[in-house]
Amino acid sequence: MNYAIVLRLLSYILLTEGALLLLPAVASLCYGEWFVMGVFLFTAALSALAGALFHRVKAKSQIFYMREGFVTTALCWLLISVVGAVPFVLTGCIPNPVDALFETVSGFTTTGASILPAVADLPKGILFWRSFTHWVGGMGVLVFLLSLLPLTGGSHVNLMKAESPGPQVDKLVPKVQSTAKILYGIYLALTVIEFIFLLFGRMSVFDAMLTAFGTAGTGGFGFLNDSFASFSPYIQWVVTIFMILFGVNFNAYFLLLMRRFRRAAASEEVRAYFLIIAVAVGIITCNIYSMYNGLGEALRHAAFQVGSIITTTGFSSCDFDLWPTLSKEILVMLMFVGACAGSTGGGIKVSRLLLLGKSLKKELKQALHPQVVAPVRMDGKLVNHETIRATNVYVAAYIFIFAASFLLISLDGFDMVTNFTAIAATLNNIGPGLNQVGPMMNFGGYSNPAKLVMIFDMLAGRLEIFPMLVLFLPDTWRRF
Amino acid sequence: MNYAIVLRLLSYILLTEGALLLLPAVASLCYGEWFVMGVFLFTAALSALAGALFHRVKAKSQIFYMREGFVTTALCWLLISVVGAVPFVLTGCIPNPVDALFETVSGFTTTGASILPAVADLPKGILFWRSFTHWVGGMGVLVFLLSLLPLTGGSHVNLMKAESPGPQVDKLVPKVQSTAKILYGIYLALTVIEFIFLLFGRMSVFDAMLTAFGTAGTGGFGFLNDSFASFSPYIQWVVTIFMILFGVNFNAYFLLLMRRFRRAAASEEVRAYFLIIAVAVGIITCNIYSMYNGLGEALRHAAFQVGSIITTTGFSSCDFDLWPTLSKEILVMLMFVGACAGSTGGGIKVSRLLLLGKSLKKELKQALHPQVVAPVRMDGKLVNHETIRATNVYVAAYIFIFAASFLLISLDGFDMVTNFTAIAATLNNIGPGLNQVGPMMNFGGYSNPAKLVMIFDMLAGRLEIFPMLVLFLPDTWRRF
Repeated sequence: MNYAIVLRLLSYILLTEGALLLLPAVASLCYGEWFVMGVFLFTAALSALAGALFHRVKAKSQIFYMREGFVTTALCWLLISVVGAVPFVLTGCIPNPVDALFETVSGFTTTGASILPAVADLPKGILFWRSFTHWVGGMGVLVFLLSLLPLTGGSHVNLMKAESPGPQVDKLVPKVQSTAKILYGIYLALTVIEFIFLLFGRMSVFDAMLTAFGTAGTGGFGFLNDSFASFSPYIQWVVTIFMILFGVNFNAYFLLLMRRFRRAAASEEVRAYFLIIAVAVGIITCNIYSMYNGLGEALRHAAFQVGSIITTTGFSSCDFDLWPTLSKEILVMLMFVGACAGSTGGGIKVSRLLLLGKSLKKELKQALHPQVVAPVRMDGKLVNHETIRATNVYVAAYIFIFAASFLLISLDGFDMVTNFTAIAATLNNIGPGLNQVGPMMNFGGYSNPAKLVMIFDMLAGRLEIFPMLVLFLPDTWRRF
Repeated sequence: MNYAIVLRLLSYILLTEGALLLLPAVASLCYGEWFVMGVFLFTAALSALAGALFHRVKAKSQIFYMREGFVTTALCWLLISVVGAVPFVLTGCIPNPVDALFETVSGFTTTGASILPAVADLPKGILFWRSFTHWVGGMGVLVFLLSLLPLTGGSHVNLMKAESPGPQVDKLVPKVQSTAKILYGIYLALTVIEFIFLLFGRMSVFDAMLTAFGTAGTGGFGFLNDSFASFSPYIQWVVTIFMILFGVNFNAYFLLLMRRFRRAAASEEVRAYFLIIAVAVGIITCNIYSMYNGLGEALRHAAFQVGSIITTTGFSSCDFDLWPTLSKEILVMLMFVGACAGSTGGGIKVSRLLLLGKSLKKELKQALHPQVVAPVRMDGKLVNHETIRATNVYVAAYIFIFAASFLLISLDGFDMVTNFTAIAATLNNIGPGLNQVGPMMNFGGYSNPAKLVMIFDMLAGRLEIFPMLVLFLPDTWRRF
């Protein structure tokens, strides 16, 4: 392990977070919340100071392998979460440090699961910081850093691989740094467009900003106690459409920008993603039709919840825990499906499921015709064995972590559906589950140990498991 | 597809079932149930007649590939179930044909899920047939046939592969036919030993026989309405121990017979199996301690249920649906773990989970040290890539089938835990689930379409998915 280079990267992260913390300070300033502003400025200073200290470590070697990539990514996310939790504790909004860490991890990992029973009365600065963590975490902190810093060695691609969601990392352009810049550019542009659309719906600037942050990062923290239930149908439709758009593989947007429309439309993952959404919305609309006033309302709620869950955002426009079993089960399944690879969404990802399905079909064919070689193709290109193997290993690790977490939190004595959906909602970075963690409930009822398990799960979900597991291998920490 | 040879094998199956149906006829005779005896004799004659008709088809070619193996196996299990359901309908015990088919498939696949609310009043012949199907299905109908018939071509090994549980088929001795004979010999001997132990506990001969059938096949049909709750602690312990013994890989018994004790004790799968049982029993005993009179009773119920669920038998000594969440969740997890490969138990199998865990560890190491090659080993031997790939594909197929079934049966409107455990209990060939399909409830409340889904799942679970999926590929039915 090249400790020096890891420390150096962490120092950049702390400096960056120091700068980011100035934004909620400005928000507090606008609303005259002097104490809250002071807390944010103090935390920003603390973060910058720690960053400057770390920065004094000089790296003798520039060696940066996958191992360093994993460790840096995992530690970076832990670190920004710990620092980001400080304002919650110091302002007294969330006095319990474990709760504050839960809320911050939930923010950065774009989960959106909250331990707060009511959020409407929180200071504006705190509300801003909660939603802003979604936006920062959505596209990735390290990808952000990559777009700014000229790093050497294998750092670029290994950090990108460790932080970006999906079975494969596609470099849009040959240079990783340029890829990161393009991704953040698209991300920012889409966020601004949504913001404008929300303003048209007569949302206040502050609310529209928070909504756009939460949608863009596919986060899910609300700022009203009933999430989006009390907003107008227009606002709900705008949010629905943008949630679904942020769940699309960003490569598709890049191709659109390059005017390669045919290739963008040919992406099997994006097609499957829209197909799943259409089918799920169709079935649920029929299933809940009788609960609402007419087709329009049923369709709106179905589309909102399906978009919210498959993209792992976690906003809600109604209490879907009251829906019939079929609809609830579809939502639970969508929790696992997740959005496209290369989007800001979580879950297992549509492309992984496509790969699993394709390799299953291939093996069946091969069993029938042992002499025929039938390779797996995606978007017309051959998928190499490494990717398929990595996908299988990911699924295995996913199952083990799910099972272990499910058992550990059951010690708290909640019912099985609560426990199951609590883990599904945190490991897939969604937010609400069902029953005691349903859309109108919160995660505050769980004990501290259970919350720590779910903090691990949220990070494992966002970083796609490996970086978090690597932390526990003794091998990782050996000097070389 | 070589239709002729498939038909020929099916004709042997029908002739065999005709012979097997004489046993319940004898049981009916002993109890003076003349009408029931008549029904069994009629069904036996019908089966034999159909078999004789099929037998007239002459196979021109002896070609028998994996494809023929899969199709023969799937059709054979469907056929014996349809014929086996006839007595239930004709005697009027289960008038609805779908229910009768459900009950028979549940028997042959050693699931033990019942649609009958009360079984104690059924005619003795019917009770005998229900439990006897467990014994026949446990070790496998085709394996039984293999031990009798001298087949040519690739039939032997391809049938064995298609019907035997586990990621790999170990031939104990070079000839497949001899392997089948040895397996059935061990199976019969263990059944008889359990029967004798049960007689010592003052069980009646009839009850002891039915219990031994159900335990040996890891089936789970009871013959009293409360399963084993009203039997003595001695009987409960005997059943516990034999359930666990029938979940052990039969290769271990063969090695013991060959006096190769060290190799038998070194099996990683068998060790992991006993370790999981010990840990699960330990935790559950502590968890349910306060519900029973002292440690002994808590331990007995914990051991009985853990043994029953992990081996996928499905007997119960108490209503575990009343246990705390932690204990229930452990049982739900054990439903998926299942017994050892090469046993009569169902589920995913301990060896598959071991393989998944090992390949996960290997991939993690490889990510840290890309230059080191770390192959996966099991029992000291290298595991080839084919086996690992097949295991991964199995898990993928398993997940897809689980998800689809879970959604399909939810149309009936039961709650989510009922639906989830109903599919877990049928796809893993266990029997009881929780809530509406709990140990003191039954599957009779589901609609016919939902029952058909579960019939498919029970067969897919017993035959480890592939043979059932192959039936749906158009490729399969192409002449060559």
